[in-house]
Amino acid sequence: MANPVYKMIELTGTSPVSVEEAVQNALQRAAKTVREMKWLEVVEIRGRIDEDHVGQWQVTVKVGFTVLDEEDDD
Amino acid sequence: MANPVYKMIELTGTSPVSVEEAVQNALQRAAKTVREMKWLEVVEIRGRIDEDHVGQWQVTVKVGFTVLDEEDDD
Amino acid sequence: MANPVYKMIELTGTSPVSVEEAVQNALQRAAKTVREMKWLEVVEIRGRIDEDHVGQWQVTVKVGFTVLDEEDDD
Amino acid sequence: MANPVYKMIELTGTSPVSVEEAVQNALQRAAKTVREMKWLEVVEIRGRIDEDHVGQWQVTVKVGFTVLDEEDDD
Amino acid sequence: MANPVYKMIELTGTSPVSVEEAVQNALQRAAKTVREMKWLEVVEIRGRIDEDHVGQWQVTVKVGFTVLDEEDDD
Amino acid sequence: MANPVYKMIELTGTSPVSVEEAVQNALQRAAKTVREMKWLEVVEIRGRIDEDHVGQWQVTVKVGFTVLDEEDDD
Amino acid sequence: MANPVYKMIELTGTSPVSVEEAVQNALQRAAKTVREMKWLEVVEIRGRIDEDHVGQWQVTVKVGFTVLDEEDDD
Amino acid sequence: MANPVYKMIELTGTSPVSVEEAVQNALQRAAKTVREMKWLEVVEIRGRIDEDHVGQWQVTVKVGFTVLDEEDDD
Amino acid sequence: MANPVYKMIELTGTSPVSVEEAVQNALQRAAKTVREMKWLEVVEIRGRIDEDHVGQWQVTVKVGFTVLDEEDDD
Amino acid sequence: MANPVYKMIELTGTSPVSVEEAVQNALQRAAKTVREMKWLEVVEIRGRIDEDHVGQWQVTVKVGFTVLDEEDDD
Amino acid sequence: MANPVYKMIELTGTSPVSVEEAVQNALQRAAKTVREMKWLEVVEIRGRIDEDHVGQWQVTVKVGFTVLDEEDDD
Amino acid sequence: MANPVYKMIELTGTSPVSVEEAVQNALQRAAKTVREMKWLEVVEIRGRIDEDHVGQWQVTVKVGFTVLDEEDDD
Repeated sequence: MANPVYKMIELTGTSPVSVEEAVQNALQRAAKTVREMKWLEVVEIRGRIDEDHVGQWQVTVKVGFTVLDEEDDD
Repeated sequence: MANPVYKMIELTGTSPVSVEEAVQNALQRAAKTVREMKWLEVVEIRGRIDEDHVGQWQVTVKVGFTVLDEEDDD
Repeated sequence: MANPVYKMIELTGTSPVSVEEAVQNALQRAAKTVREMKWLEVVEIRGRIDEDHVGQWQVTVKVGFTVLDEEDDD
Repeated sequence: MANPVYKMIELTGTSPVSVEEAVQNALQRAAKTVREMKWLEVVEIRGRIDEDHVGQWQVTVKVGFTVLDEEDDD
Repeated sequence: MANPVYKMIELTGTSPVSVEEAVQNALQRAAKTVREMKWLEVVEIRGRIDEDHVGQWQVTVKVGFTVLDEEDDD
Repeated sequence: MANPVYKMIELTGTSPVSVEEAVQNALQRAAKTVREMKWLEVVEIRGRIDEDHVGQWQVTVKVGFTVLDEEDDD
Repeated sequence: MANPVYKMIELTGTSPVSVEEAVQNALQRAAKTVREMKWLEVVEIRGRIDEDHVGQWQVTVKVGFTVLDEEDDD
Repeated sequence: MANPVYKMIELTGTSPVSVEEAVQNALQRAAKTVREMKWLEVVEIRGRIDEDHVGQWQVTVKVGFTVLDEEDDD
Repeated sequence: MANPVYKMIELTGTSPVSVEEAVQNALQRAAKTVREMKWLEVVEIRGRIDEDHVGQWQVTVKVGFTVLDEEDDD
Repeated sequence: MANPVYKMIELTGTSPVSVEEAVQNALQRAAKTVREMKWLEVVEIRGRIDEDHVGQWQVTVKVGFTVLDEEDDD
Repeated sequence: MANPVYKMIELTGTSPVSVEEAVQNALQRAAKTVREMKWLEVVEIRGRIDEDHVGQWQVTVKVGFTVLDEEDDD
Repeated sequence: MANPVYKMIELTGTSPVSVEEAVQNALQRAAKTVREMKWLEVVEIRGRIDEDHVGQWQVTVKVGFTVLDEEDDD
């Protein structure tokens, strides 16, 4: 592909453990339907507080993937 | 769902009346095809001017919805 | 359509030549599957460096298109 | 006009009632001296507090209008 | 007071009806314990979606008030 | 509470170990005096460098909590 | 002029061809009424899409010019 | 004026001495042609370097003034 | 304190003279009730204009202070 | 190199012709002393105005390059 | 040093494991040539995706260090 | 030099007295090793608080200087 085209989608992954695991959970889910994911950028780190600790990390990422010829990029 | 994953889409709703109605119009249209919409964030408020008043409010929102297992999240 | 609704998608087009051509390449690819594209906004201009020059311009755009009644806006 | 040129001015409208009315008030005043206003973008929403409520909404907008040939665009 | 000093607090008001009412609700609650509130600035407009409409507007404001001599400004 | 009101405070937690632990330390300290903390947003990640490694992670968070009726929200 | 004063105006130039030409078109039009323009800064690059390509580049620039003594700087 | 309307202009004042003097110089020049200036906001602080010191402070401010009925607000 | 926790408050100090004095005035007032203030960050510089000069500088700062064990950090 | 480290430098290239050429000029100059440049990001596009056109495009880029073992990365 | 001067450099560290390790890797490499590093600020968190997980975390930090008298601060 | 190339470095100067003096201190130190410094832009104003006043102003500036032919621009 001489001039590849990429599409970005924005996902929020969650985890009770860490920022990194929240991102991994988002990617694993996305990988079921999106092929050729190439890179991500963290755009927001939030969390739900359960009394005195973070009960759920919520990490929003932009994910870039190659638009393949047979794909619908809407 | 132990660790839910959300997807964000960005929509612009329009209304001749108000910011709130523009957002509602965007949600009503989106609800025809997207399930489990949870929250929104207003990212831009613009308008088309007809001579001396706002003829059309244009409100851009990010909408977050739960990615269900059977859904295509592309 | 009294109160049109628009959806934005984010694409990165590439070109060895110029910023403008990178955007055109993204639009041409998108036009295969998205109808009624109306406007774009450049959100990022990056490039891959090959030794001492830009080997590939990478221009990220937000593209807005009308959500038609029969369309899936997910 | 093959390649129209637009100028932006920044105005703050006020209203005791709502964000929308504050914008309309700014446009009505501007329409007395500016022709061909086309679009606006809300850039700031502030308010004066009178004890326990908003006594005056103050909404700053950028207004874009076509620069006509006979106009002074300073 | 020759050189007044102000303190800002950040509040999120909510309403099922409108952006303006959400702000008013925040101010009414704050007025129970904060005196001399002078101005506000809207910093974020979000909402909870109930199926296909905004069930709750959530508007975050910065509120500025005069620090009086007898007051604790922590 | 038909229309809850929230207040945000900004805290910086520290830890020699990780971003997540710095946040947890801030929340544990805050929980001694603030009830009903609901969510947080990471606004800055900094660190003190000890020679060639991060000796102390410093993570600034905005914490939102419900303003209860008997509480002083100043 | 020991301490020159400058004024900034914001213009949007358009062109079917390129970002650079859109800016030049804005400057040529502005030069009819504004003297002593010194520098510009690109603040936004947008475009109108005609089916599958950019039909009109829309580039918004801030233009700084010296306020001369006889000039009206409103 | 029940609902005053304000206009903002952007000016850069200069001074070899200080940030404050640069702003004052901009205001003094503007006061020759603009009436009813009310407030300003510093948007940028730059400087020209002469060898090893700041030879000229360049401070850009947004100035807000009341739009009077007889005034041209273009 | 192995892992200190800091709280930030946002204050606006005022002065007819300079940016620096406005900040000092805010700190002096805050020091009456807040102990262990450590650092500040200027977040906004505004001013009230009296005819043709700045009558009052208004400088908003974020102030960070150590949360002590006996303190109420609300 | 299992875990490469990159350094970013910020350069402004200039050209009387185009944004792209200004960037190329910066890269060509940088390539004389910096090896292993990998990517760039455009951070600002400015220009010097000569009467009624852009006499010099000034494009600021961040350039990322691999820190090699023998290199001084200060 | 009565009035210390600091310089900031921008580095991207990488790690297959975590955000924190990516930062540590950048610091360890930098410490070979830069002395007196004092603090860092995370400015961007990105990652390379390998199929369905983050194969490489890429964390960009600004690092501040004291400019010593014998040092070249270019 | 037909198309000059500039490099930006980021420095933090300090002073117990004022913002301006902090910047001057940074420039004086930089002038020992950097030639052809042309302009600066203030990017952050912070301060260390000693009890109830600013003990040290910390002003971060970007400094732009011409890259000369014989210079190392790393």
